[in-house]
Amino acid sequence: MKNINKPTLLIDKSIVLANIKEMKHKANESNAMLRPHFKTHQSAKIGDWFRAEGIDKITVSSVEMAFYFAKYGWKDITIAFPLNIRELDSVIELSKKIELTVLVTSMQHIEALLAANIKNISYFIKIDVGYHRSGLESNQFELIKEIIDKQNENLIFKGFLSHFGDTYHVSNPSEVNDIYESGIKELLTLKEKINLKKELLISVGDTPSCSLVPSFQGVDEIRPGNFVYYDLMQKQIGSCVHNQVAAIVACPVVDIYPQRKEVLIYGGAVHISKEYVTINKTNKSYGEIVEINKNGWGEVIPNTWVKNVSQEHGIIATTDEFITKIKIGDILGIVPVHSCLVANLLRDIVVING
Amino acid sequence: MKNINKPTLLIDKSIVLANIKEMKHKANESNAMLRPHFKTHQSAKIGDWFRAEGIDKITVSSVEMAFYFAKYGWKDITIAFPLNIRELDSVIELSKKIELTVLVTSMQHIEALLAANIKNISYFIKIDVGYHRSGLESNQFELIKEIIDKQNENLIFKGFLSHFGDTYHVSNPSEVNDIYESGIKELLTLKEKINLKKELLISVGDTPSCSLVPSFQGVDEIRPGNFVYYDLMQKQIGSCVHNQVAAIVACPVVDIYPQRKEVLIYGGAVHISKEYVTINKTNKSYGEIVEINKNGWGEVIPNTWVKNVSQEHGIIATTDEFITKIKIGDILGIVPVHSCLVANLLRDIVVING
Repeated sequence: MKNINKPTLLIDKSIVLANIKEMKHKANESNAMLRPHFKTHQSAKIGDWFRAEGIDKITVSSVEMAFYFAKYGWKDITIAFPLNIRELDSVIELSKKIELTVLVTSMQHIEALLAANIKNISYFIKIDVGYHRSGLESNQFELIKEIIDKQNENLIFKGFLSHFGDTYHVSNPSEVNDIYESGIKELLTLKEKINLKKELLISVGDTPSCSLVPSFQGVDEIRPGNFVYYDLMQKQIGSCVHNQVAAIVACPVVDIYPQRKEVLIYGGAVHISKEYVTINKTNKSYGEIVEINKNGWGEVIPNTWVKNVSQEHGIIATTDEFITKIKIGDILGIVPVHSCLVANLLRDIVVING
Repeated sequence: MKNINKPTLLIDKSIVLANIKEMKHKANESNAMLRPHFKTHQSAKIGDWFRAEGIDKITVSSVEMAFYFAKYGWKDITIAFPLNIRELDSVIELSKKIELTVLVTSMQHIEALLAANIKNISYFIKIDVGYHRSGLESNQFELIKEIIDKQNENLIFKGFLSHFGDTYHVSNPSEVNDIYESGIKELLTLKEKINLKKELLISVGDTPSCSLVPSFQGVDEIRPGNFVYYDLMQKQIGSCVHNQVAAIVACPVVDIYPQRKEVLIYGGAVHISKEYVTINKTNKSYGEIVEINKNGWGEVIPNTWVKNVSQEHGIIATTDEFITKIKIGDILGIVPVHSCLVANLLRDIVVING
């Protein structure tokens, strides 16, 4: 780590590979396909690691990201964000290059696709089973049916897709299972009620569910993204343990304030984002702290966390014991709260253990 | 705005110029120099607008940013972040190209500079007058004196610099004035006590103070950054009014949910950041909403705000009245909470009115 002089995203390849293998194995056991969400890493290099594990179909969250990965040879991409009709020209262009699937959540979306006369495109209808971010509700049955009926030989209805985003806000891992079970039940009931002649797919896949539920019965594909790196939020939910966290932000120690037991690091909102978790019931934490060693990083330093960030500054609150161990110019590791946002901010990664 | 198809940062040049002129005029009236902080915009183009207003000395918050602006012809730059000794080689390189000023907050910083034998570099000692982010406290008088005594003909002590960051957390604009007055008093007392033969400079300059205090008596330079664009946070503090906000994020409407009075936009944490303000005592707001028109944007839509963001999604809470006016494919403007973080995320800007 001698060459690290500014906030730098360290990726432990051995942990990434283990995370991919484990999720793929779990999907296989349920006869579900793993179509990983690449918004977490947004990196062609990390994409290659998935490819080496036999992944050839992926999920992204923007048209821009779809173009990026198409350029790197990905031929089957779902854009898991409701169709932005203002980007229709780009969607048409993409559909000529790859097997493209988009999300439809309103009659206007499907009508825009129809009017565009696209030669080959598929669509999921996104169903909102309670998260209330986007999608049609399953009780909008007639509308759902109408949207399905708009399909034709070039515009192919694939099935129902959902995101159980509530799993990010649980206070106990068992709640993740409850949210998952209830969501799946709603989707399967809808599937039964729709009663199509052809098989339709069920696609789900937030990282907490995919990590915590015992199996994916009734589900055709899962789309987790975050699991590739995991992070503090996932640890707090219970989706992973510390040894599964594959991404750390290495930050230089700039100054030390023993009197108030605080350390100033070069590492702020433009590096680790403003996402926080609440710890000890009242404190905001923008990250846990680990020591960096030549093989990667160690266990979490007790009672030590990033208590505040401004644009470039981070303030670590710590203990008398730890503060005596560190000095100006050291590098500390931050377990980021949300690895997706950090990977979006820090595009240059340093790979270790691989 | 016909060509806007994804989240896009709109900059109103006429407002930017008015903001620069007003701050420069205010600095002139107090015989203080405006050394604007360029971390807000991080843009060579916006930098040129400052240059046209007679600005030739600037502030940045990282070594990287200093290199960027040096490349665009800026010859006098202060890096207003405590010296990161791991970047000393880059600091040395920069010092050969421009008039460089760095911040010293510990004996180790000044010793590192001394040992590097830099031919021409200046330093401020950063004083912490209560914000407790970084800096020496004025009661560390002996240490401050020792650090000043390390100066030599190549390593020039410039004076005391402070950032009154508490002004970002007031509930009433009058508190900004109190924080400013108390901070200035402490700095001027320290200056008097140090009693150097040569004149030393006092440099301050958070945007709330610079916008709200009546004059900068006793201050040699001010370093506000945020004022160039202002934002929702500054409006909430009272530093500006809506007509002074120069940066808006234009976002496509992707779906509309009349039942829950919500609108889905393409615009999330990777565009407008996770920074929020609290409104109506309990609600988080990630931005206010304005309508976009051919000359820019209008007044704030009442009872309408970004209530949640995930990576690419934004959810706007609004009223029955407004929801009937908008349709899928429209573009709405977001008054961002913190323009510095947004400008860091959205590097391609669209300039209007200029």
